[in-house]
Amino acid sequence: MLSRFYTLTDHPTGLPKRELFSLESQELPDLDEGEVRIRNHWLSVDPYMRGRMSGVHTYVAPFQLGKPMEGGAIGEVIASNHPNLKVGDKVSHMGGWRDIAQLPGDSVTALPDHNVPDQAYLGVLGMPGMTAWTGLNLIAECKPGDNVLVSAASGAVGSLVVQLAKAKGCHVVGIAGAAHKLAWLESLGVEPVSYRDRSAQELSDAIKLASPNGIDVYFENVGGICLEAALSQLNEGARIAVCGMIDGYNAETPAPGPSNLSQLVARKAKMQGFIVADHWASYGYFLNEVAPQVADGKLDYKETIKEGLESTPDAFLALFEGGNTGKMLVKLSD
Amino acid sequence: MLSRFYTLTDHPTGLPKRELFSLESQELPDLDEGEVRIRNHWLSVDPYMRGRMSGVHTYVAPFQLGKPMEGGAIGEVIASNHPNLKVGDKVSHMGGWRDIAQLPGDSVTALPDHNVPDQAYLGVLGMPGMTAWTGLNLIAECKPGDNVLVSAASGAVGSLVVQLAKAKGCHVVGIAGAAHKLAWLESLGVEPVSYRDRSAQELSDAIKLASPNGIDVYFENVGGICLEAALSQLNEGARIAVCGMIDGYNAETPAPGPSNLSQLVARKAKMQGFIVADHWASYGYFLNEVAPQVADGKLDYKETIKEGLESTPDAFLALFEGGNTGKMLVKLSD
Repeated sequence: MLSRFYTLTDHPTGLPKRELFSLESQELPDLDEGEVRIRNHWLSVDPYMRGRMSGVHTYVAPFQLGKPMEGGAIGEVIASNHPNLKVGDKVSHMGGWRDIAQLPGDSVTALPDHNVPDQAYLGVLGMPGMTAWTGLNLIAECKPGDNVLVSAASGAVGSLVVQLAKAKGCHVVGIAGAAHKLAWLESLGVEPVSYRDRSAQELSDAIKLASPNGIDVYFENVGGICLEAALSQLNEGARIAVCGMIDGYNAETPAPGPSNLSQLVARKAKMQGFIVADHWASYGYFLNEVAPQVADGKLDYKETIKEGLESTPDAFLALFEGGNTGKMLVKLSD
Repeated sequence: MLSRFYTLTDHPTGLPKRELFSLESQELPDLDEGEVRIRNHWLSVDPYMRGRMSGVHTYVAPFQLGKPMEGGAIGEVIASNHPNLKVGDKVSHMGGWRDIAQLPGDSVTALPDHNVPDQAYLGVLGMPGMTAWTGLNLIAECKPGDNVLVSAASGAVGSLVVQLAKAKGCHVVGIAGAAHKLAWLESLGVEPVSYRDRSAQELSDAIKLASPNGIDVYFENVGGICLEAALSQLNEGARIAVCGMIDGYNAETPAPGPSNLSQLVARKAKMQGFIVADHWASYGYFLNEVAPQVADGKLDYKETIKEGLESTPDAFLALFEGGNTGKMLVKLSD
């Protein structure tokens, strides 16, 4: 059976060029002991993948040039040499960026039994959802009544942070760009603030208007002027959960940081980076709390869906151009 | 009785000019109910005072133009209308920048009874010492065996941080400038690293050489290239206690921050500002732990002493030019 997959032909500097992604194929070998073969239905593309393209080991191993790329995926077992997995089982796994994956069965997880669409386990109930929940609760220690600010508030992670914070009884401000994203935030009862065509000072003023009582919790996805503006509005004892700084992921030369970091002292504030993988032991708690909300339609999670394996690189690149509302997914035809 | 005191004639921008400090005098009124009159023997000048000069409320009220400035001081009661304080009592209080202070007795603290020089309560056993202990233990959660980095490592606070960390069994690297400061650090078993004439990258390389196993705890007094260099050497789970960022206190236009703040994510690191005043409830624990070490000569604390009330502004300004080793003090003649 033929597997079609993407490889990286070189390590990008700056925004990766489309030509760096090469679609290749190979005939799969027979199943080894313990292996399963999976037909992927859904592929995930995520900003963190940019880090794996640089050839440098950060918190996750880099992609190897010429080898199949990896990423979250949902599929169906079509052949199994593993005692616990049978043909027809729906599974989530890391063999994405390809149509047919062949993997050790032990590295594959059967989908939990909640009444939600399969692809929810790549988004609202998968890594982005768990990231939102972890950052808000475990890192920023968000409490009811807190004033919460979220950058990239309509993204896969941010769109869940704002809703989880609203559900907790917080006053929530969301930073986004496009008008339809701002409108969507407003429809959730979130105060929308645009970063477009604004200096850090202007963005800071807009945040102050939207949150006159300051900011207790900042969920950081962006960096750049968003961070500088947020720092200037912190309350005493504020907590910043740093999930990512997408603003700098494609920078060819490092951009300077905020000029007002000493606000951390004046406001006795905490700024803490985290990687969701470290907190996976809490995934069960997250799922128990959030999956029923998803099944009941109480969480308005967004998806942006591209069709076909060939659209995977474009779907990935669109993440850096504001091309997604909510979780970016690639849907594969059968 | 005449009190001589300094006032501020204007709010400085940049490094304050000497002319902004005006020496004035006034005849003190009779003691009110509960008041005491104190002849000061020692005055403290500290970097945080720069913040009070800007006319902006940060974490402490600004100095008022034309009014006596304030600061830590040690003196002797020369007249008392307070039931618990009598003539001859040694006290610490905030009526500094003057020779004779007249204050409510309730705002004055009798010196504890440890076998140490009086002025120790302005330095190693006072605010700077408590700051070092708080940042290292309560904020950075320093553990035996940690790799500890300290900027301004020969300053009033830093010089105690390095010794407290050594006493805990840590590997300690200290950043300083002048050769005699580096030599003093080396004499304590601290790895000395100079920041002079170095780029952030060069400083980072020097830190790596001095601490090949990375940095678990960074005690931050400076900001600027020190912070950028430290961020690039963090271990996973590192803790940064931000005590201050003296590098920027006199900046007329804000200098950009470090370009590698996203290291907080990659290293899952925490960066937390603190103000020692919030932790004063723990002062007794600190004193019990550190005062015997001072009395026994086990803590090598440094003082830089200027003589006479008239030297107070120069003593303060010298803090920003590397003019002190350890605690900067002004000694008043009787």
